[in-house]
Amino acid sequence: MPSVEALPYPLDPLSQEEIEAAIATVKKAHGELFFNVVSMHEPRKAEMTAWLADPATAPRPARIADIVAIAPGGKVYDGLVDLKETKIIKWEHTEGVQPIITMEELQVVEHICRTDPKVIEQCEISGIPKEDMDKVYCDPWTIGYDERHGNLVRLQQALMYYRPDIDDCQYQYPLDFCPIYDADKKQIIAIDIPKVRRPLSRTPPVNYHPAGVEKAGGYRTDLKPINITQPEGVSFEMTGREIEWQAWKFHIGFNYREGIVLNNITYNDKGNVRPIFYRLSLAEMVVPYGHPEPPHHRKHAFDLGEYGAGYMTNSLSLGCDCKGSIHYLDAIFPTRAGGIRTIKNAICIHEEDDGILFKHTDFRDESVIVTRARKLIIQQIFTAANYEYAVQWVFHQDGTIQPEIKLTGILNTYAMNPDEDTEGWGTQVYPGVNAHNHQHLFCLRIDPNIDGPNNSVFMVDAVPSDEPVGSPNNKYGNAFYAKRTKLETSGQAMTDYNGATSRTWDICNEGKLHPYSKKPVSYKLVSREVPGLLPKKDGLVWKRAGFARHAVHVTKYSDDQLWPAGRHVPQTSGEPSFGLPQWIGDGSDSISNTDVVFWHTFGVTHFPAPEDFPVMPVEPITLLLRPRNFFSNNPVMNVPPSYCSTPSQVLAKGKGVVDAADKMSKLAFGNGTPANGGGSCCSNGANGHH
Amino acid sequence: MPSVEALPYPLDPLSQEEIEAAIATVKKAHGELFFNVVSMHEPRKAEMTAWLADPATAPRPARIADIVAIAPGGKVYDGLVDLKETKIIKWEHTEGVQPIITMEELQVVEHICRTDPKVIEQCEISGIPKEDMDKVYCDPWTIGYDERHGNLVRLQQALMYYRPDIDDCQYQYPLDFCPIYDADKKQIIAIDIPKVRRPLSRTPPVNYHPAGVEKAGGYRTDLKPINITQPEGVSFEMTGREIEWQAWKFHIGFNYREGIVLNNITYNDKGNVRPIFYRLSLAEMVVPYGHPEPPHHRKHAFDLGEYGAGYMTNSLSLGCDCKGSIHYLDAIFPTRAGGIRTIKNAICIHEEDDGILFKHTDFRDESVIVTRARKLIIQQIFTAANYEYAVQWVFHQDGTIQPEIKLTGILNTYAMNPDEDTEGWGTQVYPGVNAHNHQHLFCLRIDPNIDGPNNSVFMVDAVPSDEPVGSPNNKYGNAFYAKRTKLETSGQAMTDYNGATSRTWDICNEGKLHPYSKKPVSYKLVSREVPGLLPKKDGLVWKRAGFARHAVHVTKYSDDQLWPAGRHVPQTSGEPSFGLPQWIGDGSDSISNTDVVFWHTFGVTHFPAPEDFPVMPVEPITLLLRPRNFFSNNPVMNVPPSYCSTPSQVLAKGKGVVDAADKMSKLAFGNGTPANGGGSCCSNGANGHH
Repeated sequence: MPSVEALPYPLDPLSQEEIEAAIATVKKAHGELFFNVVSMHEPRKAEMTAWLADPATAPRPARIADIVAIAPGGKVYDGLVDLKETKIIKWEHTEGVQPIITMEELQVVEHICRTDPKVIEQCEISGIPKEDMDKVYCDPWTIGYDERHGNLVRLQQALMYYRPDIDDCQYQYPLDFCPIYDADKKQIIAIDIPKVRRPLSRTPPVNYHPAGVEKAGGYRTDLKPINITQPEGVSFEMTGREIEWQAWKFHIGFNYREGIVLNNITYNDKGNVRPIFYRLSLAEMVVPYGHPEPPHHRKHAFDLGEYGAGYMTNSLSLGCDCKGSIHYLDAIFPTRAGGIRTIKNAICIHEEDDGILFKHTDFRDESVIVTRARKLIIQQIFTAANYEYAVQWVFHQDGTIQPEIKLTGILNTYAMNPDEDTEGWGTQVYPGVNAHNHQHLFCLRIDPNIDGPNNSVFMVDAVPSDEPVGSPNNKYGNAFYAKRTKLETSGQAMTDYNGATSRTWDICNEGKLHPYSKKPVSYKLVSREVPGLLPKKDGLVWKRAGFARHAVHVTKYSDDQLWPAGRHVPQTSGEPSFGLPQWIGDGSDSISNTDVVFWHTFGVTHFPAPEDFPVMPVEPITLLLRPRNFFSNNPVMNVPPSYCSTPSQVLAKGKGVVDAADKMSKLAFGNGTPANGGGSCCSNGANGHH
Repeated sequence: MPSVEALPYPLDPLSQEEIEAAIATVKKAHGELFFNVVSMHEPRKAEMTAWLADPATAPRPARIADIVAIAPGGKVYDGLVDLKETKIIKWEHTEGVQPIITMEELQVVEHICRTDPKVIEQCEISGIPKEDMDKVYCDPWTIGYDERHGNLVRLQQALMYYRPDIDDCQYQYPLDFCPIYDADKKQIIAIDIPKVRRPLSRTPPVNYHPAGVEKAGGYRTDLKPINITQPEGVSFEMTGREIEWQAWKFHIGFNYREGIVLNNITYNDKGNVRPIFYRLSLAEMVVPYGHPEPPHHRKHAFDLGEYGAGYMTNSLSLGCDCKGSIHYLDAIFPTRAGGIRTIKNAICIHEEDDGILFKHTDFRDESVIVTRARKLIIQQIFTAANYEYAVQWVFHQDGTIQPEIKLTGILNTYAMNPDEDTEGWGTQVYPGVNAHNHQHLFCLRIDPNIDGPNNSVFMVDAVPSDEPVGSPNNKYGNAFYAKRTKLETSGQAMTDYNGATSRTWDICNEGKLHPYSKKPVSYKLVSREVPGLLPKKDGLVWKRAGFARHAVHVTKYSDDQLWPAGRHVPQTSGEPSFGLPQWIGDGSDSISNTDVVFWHTFGVTHFPAPEDFPVMPVEPITLLLRPRNFFSNNPVMNVPPSYCSTPSQVLAKGKGVVDAADKMSKLAFGNGTPANGGGSCCSNGANGHH
């Protein structure tokens, strides 16, 4: 059994040696198992914060492995292994749950479908001769929940497709039936067959690979390179997995479930290192499809809870996924058999120029300051069968954090007959291809630490004054204000977006008022893409995805309440609804001035269009966490300007101005010297008003 | 009198020679005048489209100058001059209006305030000795509308400030009174004095210039350069003011009022040049402040109609406002006396890398395609006294147009006494500095030409199925769809944003259905920052800013209906409300399948915070015009990928894969070769899943 020598940072993901040690410890005690999860068990917050406050004398949080294993026959075990002691400290058989499905479990289904006689029969009905079964593909999904099958048997539904050629896009050739796969028996136990049959489409393939593009007229030839270089290196430093950049400091974790996890986010405010967030992650998501005909109702993937944003993450590539100077972090996971799977370059970290940070010109004399911004991006991209999600955590110099998700990849598709009516539940994006309406709803878990752990949440609405036009206090009718509603309990905090009032939420520390504004120091959630859950109350998706019922939930902090649809998501019925609804219960928990967790569900409703097929141009969704009443004033005045002239310098004909304009920039045409006569950038005379 | 020889493109702004010719023609007929406007009078659409369709034989639209002039004594004239004939074709005295105010008119007020005895007296009351009047500054605004003064006299209100030192930021030292300036008499005719006096603040200055930053601890020293270079030049071509880039082609105009105007926007769809928009511009804006105490109600600047986004535009600088390879266009305006004012580099045009355009990995074999995006940006930045607005027209390769406005500059501020209560109408952003609540509401004028001039508009709401959960057609409750409501008349088209349904609007050509989806070809407005006008119905702002009453208005096209608050905006009372409300009238105009104009008001409600002071980090506001059911499928498949491997190439161990990854990118640390072992970017083995 390998021993674990040098202990890593308490929040680091498990190393290869630690995963091996955990597996060896479990195997020694319990024999051969399938390891669905071997992941870092997060230190209890009290323990972690005590150690952070005093690392020299407080006990260092132990390294513990969180295990989910399945025994032959399907028994599920949840366990914990102390890695220093190589000792199992918890081992429980958990009944009635199905743990996360792994890539390995998904990979086997296609082969079994191809050889199953009943599937072959259905393929023949669809018009595929049995000798072409190697051209039949499936995207195996967890079954979601199907009341006919329950959750005692581990199931997948196989979304079926066909490829005329191995290099064709299978999503153009969906098949109309849906086999159900039993993971324990490794066989197809049922097939859902629609009443109306839809044979294989025979349209010619439309492909996005080079041969397909050449056939359709070839590539664009008018793109010239844009080079991004950092000859002096990057402006961030890494100590292990801790990053420091532009007053920010935080730890970059990664797990099988959420992917990137950011911890201990602080901002150095002129020497005062101020805590802002204890932990940030994308904690869950659900993608409900809107076609009412069974079994399409089972298409509502919880991509994190059912498959794992870590497990599905891409190995990223220099100059493709990112440009410039990039730092990568790898991810290390167990295989089901107890081996090691490494994803190189699972996370990329880089800076980008971000346009103007601030600018002001005095119209009197054209004295001017212009300062350029840059941002730091921590990114992963994961592939959830057909779709890809690029998850970016963008840090701005001014204290803003911007989670951004870019959707690309391929639409989930279903077969349709020529001239069949989609009845509004989908769009024919190509002949014979019905792309169903769907939503992508993402749940951010925000564990705030705004100048300390005791925080409160206010809902803020922009509203007109209550006073009528013409009244003494609103004579001209122009009065409006920010109406602040304190969310006192977790029940009251179940709140929705209101576009009409540009609703925002302030996460604040009421114990610390801003010296000037006298308002509590805060971070404001500014989120505008908040469509709300369209599946109806008491329906299947509504029951299973409790976190998506409201734009905002707030809970009192509790260790292990990490994932808002619960720990084991596949095949949950939603009765009861695990995760957030359970934790909130009767809603009586006080969330005032205490350690709270803020959950935000946002996303997009996607009514497909032909432009999204056969591969979808990136659609970004973004939101902001902005410091408000947090800094004494603009925290980026100390970013060096590109150009700055003051009125006295203008009077002195430019003496003393700062001219640090980027000298690599050129005119697009001509000899490359500035059109304004070769004078200093932004200099007064050249600033142009004659 | 200069003659005009080579005629420019019909939509080009007037050249220096044309402006001079127009002025000379008017002066010859009418003597000395103040020229507030000498601008290109846009060709009638019928005439222009006839010429565009057949430039060889159709008559070329005439070059005509649009003139607004003020005679001594204040008479206002609207005129037109035919530039070929150098002949006045229209000359009208327009009563009861005040034309746009020019920078020259603004510049004179400060000097007059400094020497006016009553202003000096008020300064002394505020605590400024009369020998310090050179330290008193004012931002002159049009008066908006003040019923005590009406609109027969041309007025400005002087927002007063003080600078302890010439290089200090005056917005930290607002004064509490407001002189009213008569532009014709060139004197102060009244002073608005508040009941509660607020003497000059004596707080030490906070400055963003280098001396101020050095005093506060100095600049950040950890930023290393990010260089952006295009060694082979840019990917766009200019023919005069017409640009071609990535299938896009359009004309870039510029006028005193709207600034950038884009015309004849087409996309070359595989050889078929398809019209999309006839004309796009930011046509008006209003910035209402929410403090009910008079005279703050007069603070609701129509920055375009009252001052002009062209007149106030900055001269841009290489390597400051933009990085990379930039093309600039100048702006040429008249001076009031009839001379020429040139703003060098009024518009910048450049490309930027834009991250991933699309990506997909097959989870089976990790065959992958990743293609990078770039965007084209047409930008201007204008300074409206304290604020700056960077207006970007962003063109994406996939047919999306993204207007984006970045707000920066300085808050408008008002004096407050120590510990005075802002009563929720503002925020103390610095001791003694009250920044009032305000909105920035922008109105886009979108003249669509979606595969032809006859277009219709649908409002689209994402809604659940009407069928209850458990019913045959919605058994599991997951059904939802896009509810489309056709806007038949201009009255019905006055519609508001609905965040709960993620409301969008489709501008479409009902005469042309998509071959697959059978839906009309369309462009969809996706706009999420739509706060609505907070000043109340029948109040002053509501009356004057009719365009801001709804997120969307649609009108039947009519020449000269360009600016939604009317042609002459200063000192309008709102009774009647000029522009959109007038044009819409009783709302009976059919807007179905005809030439329509789509007006969209969007923006942000700004409750200031100390982080916004003394200069505001950029706050961006953006929206999308997206092709939906317009292209037969994804129009960017023909953008060359950075990397592409197909399943057959993976089987052939990588033979034939496309590896065009950017070779300038480096690892952040170490020797700069990729961590994945120096193999090909994205190659299968290096793609990492072992």
